[in-house]
Amino acid sequence: MENTYVIGIDLGGTNTELGLVRNDGHIVARHNLSTTDYSAFPTFADDMVKAAGELCAAGDPDTGWRGTVNDLRGIGIGAPNADPNTGSMVEPPNLKQFKGVSNFVEEFRRCGVTVPMAVDNDANAAALGEMVYGGAKGMKHFIMITLGTGVGSGIVVDGKLVHGSTGTAGELGHNILIPNGRPCSCGRNGCLETYTSARGIVKTYIEVRREMGPPKELFPGWIPPSTTDAEIHSITVGMAASAGDPLALETFRRVGYWLGIACANAVTFSAPECIFLMGGPTKVGDPLLKPLRQSFEDHLLNIYAGSCRIEMSHLKTNEVAILGAAALVS
Amino acid sequence: MENTYVIGIDLGGTNTELGLVRNDGHIVARHNLSTTDYSAFPTFADDMVKAAGELCAAGDPDTGWRGTVNDLRGIGIGAPNADPNTGSMVEPPNLKQFKGVSNFVEEFRRCGVTVPMAVDNDANAAALGEMVYGGAKGMKHFIMITLGTGVGSGIVVDGKLVHGSTGTAGELGHNILIPNGRPCSCGRNGCLETYTSARGIVKTYIEVRREMGPPKELFPGWIPPSTTDAEIHSITVGMAASAGDPLALETFRRVGYWLGIACANAVTFSAPECIFLMGGPTKVGDPLLKPLRQSFEDHLLNIYAGSCRIEMSHLKTNEVAILGAAALVS
Repeated sequence: MENTYVIGIDLGGTNTELGLVRNDGHIVARHNLSTTDYSAFPTFADDMVKAAGELCAAGDPDTGWRGTVNDLRGIGIGAPNADPNTGSMVEPPNLKQFKGVSNFVEEFRRCGVTVPMAVDNDANAAALGEMVYGGAKGMKHFIMITLGTGVGSGIVVDGKLVHGSTGTAGELGHNILIPNGRPCSCGRNGCLETYTSARGIVKTYIEVRREMGPPKELFPGWIPPSTTDAEIHSITVGMAASAGDPLALETFRRVGYWLGIACANAVTFSAPECIFLMGGPTKVGDPLLKPLRQSFEDHLLNIYAGSCRIEMSHLKTNEVAILGAAALVS
Repeated sequence: MENTYVIGIDLGGTNTELGLVRNDGHIVARHNLSTTDYSAFPTFADDMVKAAGELCAAGDPDTGWRGTVNDLRGIGIGAPNADPNTGSMVEPPNLKQFKGVSNFVEEFRRCGVTVPMAVDNDANAAALGEMVYGGAKGMKHFIMITLGTGVGSGIVVDGKLVHGSTGTAGELGHNILIPNGRPCSCGRNGCLETYTSARGIVKTYIEVRREMGPPKELFPGWIPPSTTDAEIHSITVGMAASAGDPLALETFRRVGYWLGIACANAVTFSAPECIFLMGGPTKVGDPLLKPLRQSFEDHLLNIYAGSCRIEMSHLKTNEVAILGAAALVS
């Protein structure tokens, strides 16, 4: 089979990364742009297309392929608040410089790009990346949940991403887990995100410390009692859990418990065969995964027993965003 | 366009009703079998096929059409615990006489039926009925929620029922609405069903009466204070609400509040353009619908504002089950 190439673009609040991706999932080369350097979207689009052109011109040393952007199979873009129907992003909350609607397809066409393009949010892109290049190959029904600053999700039903009537379906981070629970940045209360995002983990650690008091002894890696609430970071809590800090372990036990309920609820919707997890807070591993899987089993409706497993994404952390974007046009 | 006909069969714990349905959604004729008369599934299947044959032989007086079961476009069956993949029902909880797996397709084939057949649970059938004959015509994304003894749901994504990897997706009645909440018949706690089914309404009325005490004055239709907990029925609560009984109104206010959260959560999944409701407890109308719509708006994530409405099923109560079953093969 002849090799084909796509450009995957991962647009983030700080950095935007482009990758030239071969059809076997190998990222041939990357290029980084500083998102914050741009105050207007058209200039940003100019530079993305230029960078894509340079990646194509340099080509794939393994196969000898070289070309222009219009020799690609397509360009896929993962971006916050993406509207897949129009190929744009709409008022992205962490990219205040790009006001209103920023249309990738229109701007890239203006820059001479004629090949297929697809735009979607990062969690949806990650789900497709898992399906095309990762652990969900051949699966018809699965869900990807991304834990980070927020909680995102991509839902695949019958082998296709669920976009719904608005194009923005699959926001499980804003499923209300506990009515009248913790306040959420969305203005409502009790969203899954407030319990299982990086910020949710910090909140939970602070709650746990208030309830249990600081540990009696202090071992390497544990969070010292002198650490103020404001100094707690989800990464620190993760490292402390790995070091056996009982407060951090209790924190992840609760986070796993909540996420297990959310996963069990998701199964009543689409009966996926797997729920994949990715993102910083999942890297802690067993301190999260063990209570999560236990809670999932405990809360799963009996007719689904044994039908759905919970797994970490099979893609590498530093590749998933680009592979996900690439998968949008694969 | 020439008329075509299907038989829709609604298999219930007490009665099983067959209907001859014309492609314009008109139920030409019906036949009723008493489900409890049968102790073995093959005999039951014999009689269903026989009844279907008689309906076809009598035909449609409006058009002059007559035929045999094999002149039909198909036979659709709505049944509890249906497995659409195998065309069977599995250990239906209210039909203890039919143990193990009862395969409709195999039994009907044995009886000489050669036309297409489809089997699904009643809520999924109702959703398809709404799509083919009711208010969801032309919709690609919608959800049907059925309130009754339990709470069922049928979810349509991209114009197709979501069956998931198990064939049994779409059980929103067992979405955990309140972790560690009311005990559910499924053995878990806090399922939507425990708050919004007929039994949930009764439980809520009893709670409300305990909290608020009986009404000071008693008007016609209100539930007298002498009524014991065991005598409360969801229909009585509905009638009392229509008569202005403050306890019954408060009951439906709470039920609507809970169902509104569940509907808002469902939107984060598939972003439907409409959520349809059907079933006995919904007949009370405004006392349920007003607080439900208010709670739905209050709990809907802002990106979905205005994108999804809540409506009663457009199908007649006494037609929906047969039309739904018919729609499975339409």
